[in-house]
Amino acid sequence: MDLTTIKSPDFLKKMSITELEALSEDIRRFLITKLSATGGHIGPNLGVVELTVALHKVFNSPKDKFLWDVGHQSYVHKILTGRACEFDTIRQYKGLCGFPKRDESEHDVWETGHSSTSLSAAMGMAIARDLQKTKSYVVPIIGDGALTGGMALEALNHIGHEKTDMTVILNDNEMSIAPNVGALHSVLGRLRTAGKYNWVKDELEVFLKKVPAVGGKLAATAERVKDGLKYMVVSGMFFEDLGFTYLGPVDGHNYEELLETLQYAKKTKGPVVVHVITKKGKGYLPAESDTSGAWHGPGPYKIESGDFIKDKNVPVGWSALVSNTVLKMARKDDRIVAVTPAMPVGSKLEAFQQEFPDRMFDVGIAEQHATTMAAGLATQNMKPFLAIYSTFLQRAYDQVVHDICRQKLNVFIGIDRAGLVGADGETHQGVFDIAFLRHLPNLVLMMPKDENEGQHMVHTALTYEAGPIAMRYPRGNGLGIPLDDELKSIDIGTWEVLKEGTDATILTFGTTIPMAMEAAEALSKKGIQVEVVNARFIKPMDEEMLHNILKSNRPVLTVEEAVLQGGFGSAVLEFASEHGYYSAIDRIGIPDKFIEHGSVTKLLEEINLTTEEVINRVNKLVRPIQKRLEVK
Amino acid sequence: MDLTTIKSPDFLKKMSITELEALSEDIRRFLITKLSATGGHIGPNLGVVELTVALHKVFNSPKDKFLWDVGHQSYVHKILTGRACEFDTIRQYKGLCGFPKRDESEHDVWETGHSSTSLSAAMGMAIARDLQKTKSYVVPIIGDGALTGGMALEALNHIGHEKTDMTVILNDNEMSIAPNVGALHSVLGRLRTAGKYNWVKDELEVFLKKVPAVGGKLAATAERVKDGLKYMVVSGMFFEDLGFTYLGPVDGHNYEELLETLQYAKKTKGPVVVHVITKKGKGYLPAESDTSGAWHGPGPYKIESGDFIKDKNVPVGWSALVSNTVLKMARKDDRIVAVTPAMPVGSKLEAFQQEFPDRMFDVGIAEQHATTMAAGLATQNMKPFLAIYSTFLQRAYDQVVHDICRQKLNVFIGIDRAGLVGADGETHQGVFDIAFLRHLPNLVLMMPKDENEGQHMVHTALTYEAGPIAMRYPRGNGLGIPLDDELKSIDIGTWEVLKEGTDATILTFGTTIPMAMEAAEALSKKGIQVEVVNARFIKPMDEEMLHNILKSNRPVLTVEEAVLQGGFGSAVLEFASEHGYYSAIDRIGIPDKFIEHGSVTKLLEEINLTTEEVINRVNKLVRPIQKRLEVK
Repeated sequence: MDLTTIKSPDFLKKMSITELEALSEDIRRFLITKLSATGGHIGPNLGVVELTVALHKVFNSPKDKFLWDVGHQSYVHKILTGRACEFDTIRQYKGLCGFPKRDESEHDVWETGHSSTSLSAAMGMAIARDLQKTKSYVVPIIGDGALTGGMALEALNHIGHEKTDMTVILNDNEMSIAPNVGALHSVLGRLRTAGKYNWVKDELEVFLKKVPAVGGKLAATAERVKDGLKYMVVSGMFFEDLGFTYLGPVDGHNYEELLETLQYAKKTKGPVVVHVITKKGKGYLPAESDTSGAWHGPGPYKIESGDFIKDKNVPVGWSALVSNTVLKMARKDDRIVAVTPAMPVGSKLEAFQQEFPDRMFDVGIAEQHATTMAAGLATQNMKPFLAIYSTFLQRAYDQVVHDICRQKLNVFIGIDRAGLVGADGETHQGVFDIAFLRHLPNLVLMMPKDENEGQHMVHTALTYEAGPIAMRYPRGNGLGIPLDDELKSIDIGTWEVLKEGTDATILTFGTTIPMAMEAAEALSKKGIQVEVVNARFIKPMDEEMLHNILKSNRPVLTVEEAVLQGGFGSAVLEFASEHGYYSAIDRIGIPDKFIEHGSVTKLLEEINLTTEEVINRVNKLVRPIQKRLEVK
Repeated sequence: MDLTTIKSPDFLKKMSITELEALSEDIRRFLITKLSATGGHIGPNLGVVELTVALHKVFNSPKDKFLWDVGHQSYVHKILTGRACEFDTIRQYKGLCGFPKRDESEHDVWETGHSSTSLSAAMGMAIARDLQKTKSYVVPIIGDGALTGGMALEALNHIGHEKTDMTVILNDNEMSIAPNVGALHSVLGRLRTAGKYNWVKDELEVFLKKVPAVGGKLAATAERVKDGLKYMVVSGMFFEDLGFTYLGPVDGHNYEELLETLQYAKKTKGPVVVHVITKKGKGYLPAESDTSGAWHGPGPYKIESGDFIKDKNVPVGWSALVSNTVLKMARKDDRIVAVTPAMPVGSKLEAFQQEFPDRMFDVGIAEQHATTMAAGLATQNMKPFLAIYSTFLQRAYDQVVHDICRQKLNVFIGIDRAGLVGADGETHQGVFDIAFLRHLPNLVLMMPKDENEGQHMVHTALTYEAGPIAMRYPRGNGLGIPLDDELKSIDIGTWEVLKEGTDATILTFGTTIPMAMEAAEALSKKGIQVEVVNARFIKPMDEEMLHNILKSNRPVLTVEEAVLQGGFGSAVLEFASEHGYYSAIDRIGIPDKFIEHGSVTKLLEEINLTTEEVINRVNKLVRPIQKRLEVK
């Protein structure tokens, strides 16, 4: 069928299983084709085609509420709720969002992006439903990876205790972004291999009552009892222990099983876990046979071959640069270990893992645990490298404050994907880290201007022994400049003048340096000589240089790809105020709003973080002074 | 024995159980006496006397590492490691810390204050031990309440998976600060009543093998099999499922059981959970019979009667004021519900609980879940009041960003204990909240000047329908001013002039207003007329008033009981920079360091946040202008 004609999921109600199967084929073909051009989370979505169709057939959205944990697996849901026609624009500026978005559809009742939030939100919705005395089903759909996130476990604990009616769909594909780790994963593994669990909860009781009647065959009885025990142990006892009714495991690509189980779940009082086994990438061979996570959310690809369409000769990626430098240093310093919360691939730690499997720890989706574990390692004279995306470090803010900074422990935090990340949008922009880290005592925070300085900063961090040190680096690739053979350390709190100039100073760091240099060159041609400073240490700042700049009374413009409030520019304002300088200081950065999805270039234009704006602002700052000079 | 003569725990090694019991008596008497004068966490510490003694007898600290989760139960540990002589100073300025402190003793290997961090830190230490090929035991001691914190569950999941050697002591006293909630708590309840678990893990196997030999008594066999099953179900299967060996439950006040079990745990490979049942307040009747949590961490008390020594006629406490106003409004608006992460007593929500048990949710120590659950409630047109201490809101930073602010949901966050909290020290000071919240889009952040404005702000928050709104309020009591009968709303983003003046302006809010008023009066006597503004909205600020103040060119001093970096003062600097004002702006607040324990007055003096300093700073700001005037 033509999926773009779908207006609402109502049409599913009348479909037979054969028709549903045909529909699944159409959806798969649609996804494979569309995403080959735009890129997107193909693997997760191919895995939930039947599950999503079955959910929309059995439940009545939006009255019944689907909460897609993490949310990148909501494409099929978007298709079934009338958004297939917009798929050419997915993850692009002003286009369809790659995650659930309440503005987009009444069927999107909860926005996600970060993992493990769905159960807590579902509990809130279920409580509201019960207080308002309305009837509806609340259906969070959570992956086995997201389930190990601490807040999901907190929610399980609370929901099981309150016995609130809720249908939790556990989408178990044996991997989230990378293969999953954790004891809970083993629990699921045992469930997976145990075959279909008996829904009649008291069957075991019945079985046991029959034992006396079996008669003389005692050996056989013992065998059966043992089986019964095994059955209980490997069955959903873990969830039952927590107060849930466990249903499953169910083949997530079999409509008969799915529909039957979901109907059964609807009839069950109290909280239910429906354990659905799915296969990521199902139905598209390259994605289905992927074990590394490469097909989790790739860019464009060739449908026939499954080859990724990549720009040729791109410079080294930032994650690879950092992780490879850590690896290089780990060869010489066996105190260095790497910790990642479920991002070995994204953080490019595969080589480290390969060479030092004993010194690499993927703890699963568990940012809090990862962070405090790194702190624990540091108390024992180890040098942990905590690789974490800026947006996910938000989840470990308290651990950075309370465990790392307060105890002044030597943890190297690699803040990956700092700044705008583009297509993933609002939930993933790494724009708050400076504002939420700068006020923390004992922390050094830095950002390199290019990959060569980046590798030296890694060296700086891993040889620094006076407390925590964090380095931000952006999503994407370096500038393509050559790397020094020898690693060296950069003095903490020192900045670098990239271009001399006496009319104004631009203070900036990281990704916005090229913009500043370009602006300075353009201004130079108009006779305005702008000094450009690589303010690579956001904290501590280069106070000596800052004194000199402010003493000279030349106007200052700060430029940063981070939120303005409480950011680097504010640090400069604070310094000037503290020392009684009255220089004109202006700031450019990210304004006080959440930044949607789209290419980074487009987004920078939208928020006016551009070379042109740098030129404008410098002009504005310099003009009054020039006028004064002209008057003289 | 004279506990102040203890230098190290070595003396325990040779003691008999009878001697240990006598020692326990001495420790209890010591704690009850000392804390009757100073106040402190008497309940938790009386509960762990035998446990702590047994741990120090069986293990060898500091080679073996004790990690006290939350940490307020480390007093006995402090006594046994040579700090009894300092107990008169506990929780006082420059005195003994109420929590583990690495500076204090080599036996304090991990600092705590916030809950649920010990397992993650222990995992880091255990990994370091194994990589360094040394031998030692890592022993986190965690309460049943702290165990439900998400990060502790993340850690359990990881430790069980890795099978790392570790001895987890589960100190199960059936309540943390308030009675515990959650399904995991029920699991523990079943364990508690199940009697001693059989340590020989395969006993059941053996038992089952014997079944055929039992002969004709089939009915009896069936009974025994059922018992066996029940045994497994109610036993430590939950922990065994997660990869731990479960030992217990053990009577935590019985040395024989404790020592035997701990010795057994030492011999067990892989991660072990020793489930120890203790009684909070054990041995001191008033504390032992407490069910409300009043004896968790009281102030001074009379030993004989157990009466708390309280200041008479103190004004209403802030927590009570806020919670009672919420209750008042809840009577008229059934959309209002209250959510607390394990702090019904601290947040004074008992009356709300009493009157609206169905609309009050204590979710246990689970700040992340509490916060996102509140967001879920708000999506369904409910008005959740999330009562949370400033320092614990740090644990939910990402949930505030990602779930509440990004979705612009109508959650009222009551930020209790904002500012310096005093005796609890570094880990509990509520000084970061402005810095970690101010940069979040869509959030309104306010702080009242007194309890009357406070009640109106609660009204403001609960009738505000345009997104999240947070109100900070301090630990302790109001000013003792009368409360208006009628509640009203305050216009969002409006400030209030408390005192007119044209020589300078002080912008301040909350607890520092009296300081500013006093300074202004003193200055007035010297001929300097200072305007004092109640800047009750930290975000959004009163831009109209701010324009007028800055246009007037009079110098501005901001005063706040919060970190300076990224704080309210910085917001004023940002505004001035953005609008091209060149007024002299100076800021007073909390400097860039962690603030230790001590009385709030003492701490304010230490950091120079005093009336005198306000006077000094205003003088400095005004002087150059006065000089200029004199020249004219």
